[in-house]
Amino acid sequence: MSLYTELFYSTEINELFSDRNTIAQMLRFEAALAEAQAANGMISASAAAMIAECCRANLIDIDKLKTEIKLGGNAAIPLVKQLTRIVKNNDVEASKYVHWGATSQDVVDTATVLQIQRYVDWLEQKLVILRQSLVKVTQKHRTTLMIGRTLLQQARPITFGLKTAGWLDGIERSNQRLQETKKRVLVLQLAGAVGSGNASISKEVNQSVANLLGLQSASSWQTQRDTVAEWASLLGILTGSLGKIAKDVSLLMQTEIGEVFEGAAEGKGGSSTMPHKRNPVTCAAILANATRTPHLVASILSAMPQEHERSAGLWHSEWEVLTQLMALTAGTVERAIELIEGLEVDEKRMLDNLELTRGLIYAENVSLALAPKIGKINAHELVEKACKSAISQQKHLKEVLMDMNVDVPDLEALFKPENSIGLSLEMIDETLSQTKKS
Amino acid sequence: MSLYTELFYSTEINELFSDRNTIAQMLRFEAALAEAQAANGMISASAAAMIAECCRANLIDIDKLKTEIKLGGNAAIPLVKQLTRIVKNNDVEASKYVHWGATSQDVVDTATVLQIQRYVDWLEQKLVILRQSLVKVTQKHRTTLMIGRTLLQQARPITFGLKTAGWLDGIERSNQRLQETKKRVLVLQLAGAVGSGNASISKEVNQSVANLLGLQSASSWQTQRDTVAEWASLLGILTGSLGKIAKDVSLLMQTEIGEVFEGAAEGKGGSSTMPHKRNPVTCAAILANATRTPHLVASILSAMPQEHERSAGLWHSEWEVLTQLMALTAGTVERAIELIEGLEVDEKRMLDNLELTRGLIYAENVSLALAPKIGKINAHELVEKACKSAISQQKHLKEVLMDMNVDVPDLEALFKPENSIGLSLEMIDETLSQTKKS
Amino acid sequence: MSLYTELFYSTEINELFSDRNTIAQMLRFEAALAEAQAANGMISASAAAMIAECCRANLIDIDKLKTEIKLGGNAAIPLVKQLTRIVKNNDVEASKYVHWGATSQDVVDTATVLQIQRYVDWLEQKLVILRQSLVKVTQKHRTTLMIGRTLLQQARPITFGLKTAGWLDGIERSNQRLQETKKRVLVLQLAGAVGSGNASISKEVNQSVANLLGLQSASSWQTQRDTVAEWASLLGILTGSLGKIAKDVSLLMQTEIGEVFEGAAEGKGGSSTMPHKRNPVTCAAILANATRTPHLVASILSAMPQEHERSAGLWHSEWEVLTQLMALTAGTVERAIELIEGLEVDEKRMLDNLELTRGLIYAENVSLALAPKIGKINAHELVEKACKSAISQQKHLKEVLMDMNVDVPDLEALFKPENSIGLSLEMIDETLSQTKKS
Amino acid sequence: MSLYTELFYSTEINELFSDRNTIAQMLRFEAALAEAQAANGMISASAAAMIAECCRANLIDIDKLKTEIKLGGNAAIPLVKQLTRIVKNNDVEASKYVHWGATSQDVVDTATVLQIQRYVDWLEQKLVILRQSLVKVTQKHRTTLMIGRTLLQQARPITFGLKTAGWLDGIERSNQRLQETKKRVLVLQLAGAVGSGNASISKEVNQSVANLLGLQSASSWQTQRDTVAEWASLLGILTGSLGKIAKDVSLLMQTEIGEVFEGAAEGKGGSSTMPHKRNPVTCAAILANATRTPHLVASILSAMPQEHERSAGLWHSEWEVLTQLMALTAGTVERAIELIEGLEVDEKRMLDNLELTRGLIYAENVSLALAPKIGKINAHELVEKACKSAISQQKHLKEVLMDMNVDVPDLEALFKPENSIGLSLEMIDETLSQTKKS
Repeated sequence: MSLYTELFYSTEINELFSDRNTIAQMLRFEAALAEAQAANGMISASAAAMIAECCRANLIDIDKLKTEIKLGGNAAIPLVKQLTRIVKNNDVEASKYVHWGATSQDVVDTATVLQIQRYVDWLEQKLVILRQSLVKVTQKHRTTLMIGRTLLQQARPITFGLKTAGWLDGIERSNQRLQETKKRVLVLQLAGAVGSGNASISKEVNQSVANLLGLQSASSWQTQRDTVAEWASLLGILTGSLGKIAKDVSLLMQTEIGEVFEGAAEGKGGSSTMPHKRNPVTCAAILANATRTPHLVASILSAMPQEHERSAGLWHSEWEVLTQLMALTAGTVERAIELIEGLEVDEKRMLDNLELTRGLIYAENVSLALAPKIGKINAHELVEKACKSAISQQKHLKEVLMDMNVDVPDLEALFKPENSIGLSLEMIDETLSQTKKS
Repeated sequence: MSLYTELFYSTEINELFSDRNTIAQMLRFEAALAEAQAANGMISASAAAMIAECCRANLIDIDKLKTEIKLGGNAAIPLVKQLTRIVKNNDVEASKYVHWGATSQDVVDTATVLQIQRYVDWLEQKLVILRQSLVKVTQKHRTTLMIGRTLLQQARPITFGLKTAGWLDGIERSNQRLQETKKRVLVLQLAGAVGSGNASISKEVNQSVANLLGLQSASSWQTQRDTVAEWASLLGILTGSLGKIAKDVSLLMQTEIGEVFEGAAEGKGGSSTMPHKRNPVTCAAILANATRTPHLVASILSAMPQEHERSAGLWHSEWEVLTQLMALTAGTVERAIELIEGLEVDEKRMLDNLELTRGLIYAENVSLALAPKIGKINAHELVEKACKSAISQQKHLKEVLMDMNVDVPDLEALFKPENSIGLSLEMIDETLSQTKKS
Repeated sequence: MSLYTELFYSTEINELFSDRNTIAQMLRFEAALAEAQAANGMISASAAAMIAECCRANLIDIDKLKTEIKLGGNAAIPLVKQLTRIVKNNDVEASKYVHWGATSQDVVDTATVLQIQRYVDWLEQKLVILRQSLVKVTQKHRTTLMIGRTLLQQARPITFGLKTAGWLDGIERSNQRLQETKKRVLVLQLAGAVGSGNASISKEVNQSVANLLGLQSASSWQTQRDTVAEWASLLGILTGSLGKIAKDVSLLMQTEIGEVFEGAAEGKGGSSTMPHKRNPVTCAAILANATRTPHLVASILSAMPQEHERSAGLWHSEWEVLTQLMALTAGTVERAIELIEGLEVDEKRMLDNLELTRGLIYAENVSLALAPKIGKINAHELVEKACKSAISQQKHLKEVLMDMNVDVPDLEALFKPENSIGLSLEMIDETLSQTKKS
Repeated sequence: MSLYTELFYSTEINELFSDRNTIAQMLRFEAALAEAQAANGMISASAAAMIAECCRANLIDIDKLKTEIKLGGNAAIPLVKQLTRIVKNNDVEASKYVHWGATSQDVVDTATVLQIQRYVDWLEQKLVILRQSLVKVTQKHRTTLMIGRTLLQQARPITFGLKTAGWLDGIERSNQRLQETKKRVLVLQLAGAVGSGNASISKEVNQSVANLLGLQSASSWQTQRDTVAEWASLLGILTGSLGKIAKDVSLLMQTEIGEVFEGAAEGKGGSSTMPHKRNPVTCAAILANATRTPHLVASILSAMPQEHERSAGLWHSEWEVLTQLMALTAGTVERAIELIEGLEVDEKRMLDNLELTRGLIYAENVSLALAPKIGKINAHELVEKACKSAISQQKHLKEVLMDMNVDVPDLEALFKPENSIGLSLEMIDETLSQTKKS
């Protein structure tokens, strides 16, 4: 399944989800638990130190663990078994306090949160880079004229900076969401078998473990999975916004449009049989991910109505799906950064394309200029007629209007793209100024 | 499609999505636009007044509009046409300024936001009621002993209040999310054809319309649909949390468990052929909705990578799905309130069920009590052995342990549920105190 | 929710899902049941006749029924109640045998199958029309030259007929699937409360009812929903194939490509502000539906693991989703027929676009022609170099190659699209001949 | 991501999707292509032999390939590059004919089909075993009395064999579907860059390659993905049917029901803190998979509207999703076989549970027995009343009825489960006889 590790994923972040690292996070939980129980006088400092000392992923026999998972139904059971044996080999007394009072779900869920914690650190850094790149391209192309397109049809001129400012808006809001979501997601799971806590899992121990791991303390969320779903949604939305960027670029790269391109690289985007092609390979990878992630989010949402104090199946369905969602989103973010940083813009082609309709895209200008005189509807109809003539006679609309002796002051100006971009520049500046603040 | 209007939906909220009301919201936008343009000196006050006067949904021929939608591809085009004609019949001059400078998506998206605005008002009220009901049931059953269940197996005792406190936690967080999300979702869409604004859609007009409609002003989100996706996710998560409640209740209503029941009503939950049954009808409705909503959220997420400045299809796919998602979630919330308010608890049956395993659920107590003496693993093994004997001999675990002469101080106390609920009461109190604050 | 009745749906088929018609199908089941029980000597012929006589949808108070659905949890319970009362008003004796031995799910599921039965009749007719239209357009454009595009890039020439033959292939296979699926889907549900049959629901009665309704007899599928899921998948796949057609047309309609268009109609596809646009309105509707249907299929699949002999929620989740899926697919089929029948092809523009790359699309021809002489890799590299020159110098590849004195016999012929369509014509003929057979 | 390799997956089938094996299938395609071209006189036999000789997966540098995939966007491009180099090192002439006339998608799609081909072989064998196990358990428990349950409530008696016959029905139909689907799915993809074929990819070559690989020849399905979607749906439906089995077993394993159990194994299903538990671990794994697969099917369906002659992203999104879907379904099938083969049935508990309602489950019997005398509605009401008395007085319904002097012949017999199973045995025999035929 891993042939496409570098296409769809981030090699940096994939490591976070390796077997070894997943186990390491589970062991971090076990070590912190013992330390917290020692700090709260429940077990001896030496037992805690020994347990912590043994909580090293390289001591674990992963193959054995995988086999035993099938018996216990989750990774915590065989892991605790192995850990206990390792501790026992060193200190029989200490081994009595491994995983003391905790339950499998405490380990598994908290390990997931610890992975999310590191993922969030990574993501925040990447979003800074992505946003900076988007700011840069927006500043650079603030006044680069191009056609705006609606329903895949040429509509009216904008600047390329307005388009990229829109991309930036979406990412900014995802970043804002990330800040709000963190407080609910980066929380400890630690409440024992049925989420009620117990003598070894006191409120103080819970708080200590949370502190040790840099997480928020919280009541049990064993079968309250809204925060998991929120995290999944956040990733799905981010990938969707990046998919929108890739959709735009892939369309702008079309041979017949040719306005914007992924950065070229030796051997990149070539076809095995058509040496001239410039395939939107990075866009395709992003779009592939954006096609998949909504379904992964739905998978997590479908798993929400979990039974009683621990689910028989729904919880289990989250594990790999959440990892895939994070891994795909990380890959999407990385590809998006590469895409934005390498973006090539053909400003001349943009200008050429603005002339493709022979002035028809300026019809609304004429319509608006005429409306105060002859009314909106009449203006609309007159211009509609002129457009039809322009099309049937393959003439420029400006000429047709001149032929029709339409009385508009400064007709020429109505057909200049720079006069037709509305408030594009103000809007760009607004987005850039808000970004600076965030 | 509407046979199930009262089962899956809220009749209160369904009205919000009626053809008539949807059109009314579109007309509110058109009226506000004209007023804002008058306030900014772009059109005369009398024209604006006339337009506003004509923006009444009962003037619109809905059947005609539905037929014409097929031509234009959205509801705004034929609506603006009808509105313009109505205004023209009264005031030709004013009719020139109907929908002045705006685009179809401005109308459709803003009308959706106005529906969301009213929906949010309704939802906030309902969530207050739901949370109050959950607080009440939690307070009432703070000490009601019952078995906690994991993987559908009896595990260890909790109180019913701990279970309902968990339900409450989830709803509290959804309410918190709602407050955060509102600022991003309740925003005006108004930026003309390609989202660039224009002479008639100045920054000031945009702000004025936003003020008139009680929305935030924002740059165009025509093809930046992250806020739509965020709103959809929020609803999906809320329904998921309510689905969890219904899952629990439906399981607790099982004939063989019989601990908690939906409120009875004349003719409710009866079977056409089995007069004795007490079907979880309300739970079934909630669970049905919770089965459907994840897929509707995914549908919205799938529609995120929209092309250029307006999509050819993805935008269109949002309309009905978003409405369905809101309507189903509203129905779910209403059913959940009915469920919680009517909840019947059989405390005696809960106590009886605590005895079903003949003390096996207290095995961990014994194990923990023994562990300090003989070590965790030995304790575990001894208790495992005792449990096997208890099962094979169909004896109570307490008896078996006494037969085995196991030395534990106050064995009796280890087998009392009230001694085995860990920190249930403290956790409940914590949730209740946090709820009071919010 | 119904503003878009004519855009996304088929008005013909919507009627099939009206409240009245849904009830009518349930009543058809009740009438057939009574008739079958009479035919098998279980009840009197007169009782059966009276029951059948009363099984008329216009006798049912639908509002009352909707209200009572909330109590019983499905439409059968209040319907049987009303029907029994109606029969009783006419014949007390006969009223004893209404719904005799049947269960709610027998009524609801069979009524759904009866709707599917009529839907299949409709769909088969529409698929004949759709396939004929596709045959016609394929025949007409068998030799119409155009560029084939991969990853949205111009690749190599094909004919438009090859593209439409591909569309036809997909629809042919969906038609084939429909024929195979029918035998599993058009089956009676009739087995009483827990699917075990009973004295009134004998094997003979089951067979008689099946015969009366034109369905297959089968053992109970109350919680075996694979056939429902198969039916849903079939519809989802069909809509997906139609979505592919709409995707192609919408892309070909782009201003910068302009090769194929939806049929024009008065007022169709115009923009409210841009009189020159030709929006792919029909394609947008199809694509919107194709965006939604995968999620509806998933909703049905998610509902498969139903509990015991009748589910508490999963079954209920199917009802509206299945109707929506059928309704959306019907709308998609209708829109697709309109699209294909109205398709306008600009053959000249297709030829013009073939020249856009200045011969680069023929690079592979040159490569293949050179390969036997200098090896595939050398040929590839030489042509790659020539292409780079052509691009940087903005010259036609043919000229560049002549400048480079590349030795290829009949260079001219390598740059003619008609020589570069491979086996397009043979493939088209193969598809057309297979279609004729089916 | 692979910690759960043994829990959710089949280790047998995972190997099929290893990097090495995926590459091996791609190379099988390349070898067959060269052989076919030699057989059709297009290239020399020795070149074909040399190419075939070099088509060995262990010659490929997989790490290098993974890195280069990011440039080309699919696995075929760097693979062909490596293969060509390997051949060239042995025979420069032969190297000219590697991948001759083919396109990346030909390789990737056909390799996928070759994996499906092997998967189908495996699946067919496993389905034989699964069906045999289901036949065996059905035969064994043909007359094992238990309660049938609807909406999670006790309803009326059935036999356990009727329940398992229902399970078998679903699997039988999936097997039937598999046979029908194979002919459409096991097809060659081979038509060159834009699906039009070319001089090196003649109809004869296509047929020869198909023969060599044991596949059907077909016209290009590069962007007609209905067969991929059909295959995905088939897997999703099968997993759904298996999920239904797991749902039933997990519910029947509940402590309070305790009628059916997963087979026990040393260390299986134990809890880390509750030594007495018997967790439905295998069911949980199956249910987890059945929760995930619907979304993977939807992902494939969402990817259907692919652009032109090759998609920029949608095609790419299929690769890993299809593999996951196959891998998860294989795991589900294996787990289901383990589940059925190990199933333990507590017949005594089933009988005990039949008495739990104190005769209420036989209310319909009484109702039906009374109906001929006093009418269905009166009977229903009388029995309803009796049931209420039975409940409020905690008496057996039989006693209440005797107290009420209800006149029914042989009241005793109405309360025997064996008299209340309707046609369970006949239905079981029907299913078993149909299975024998298939």
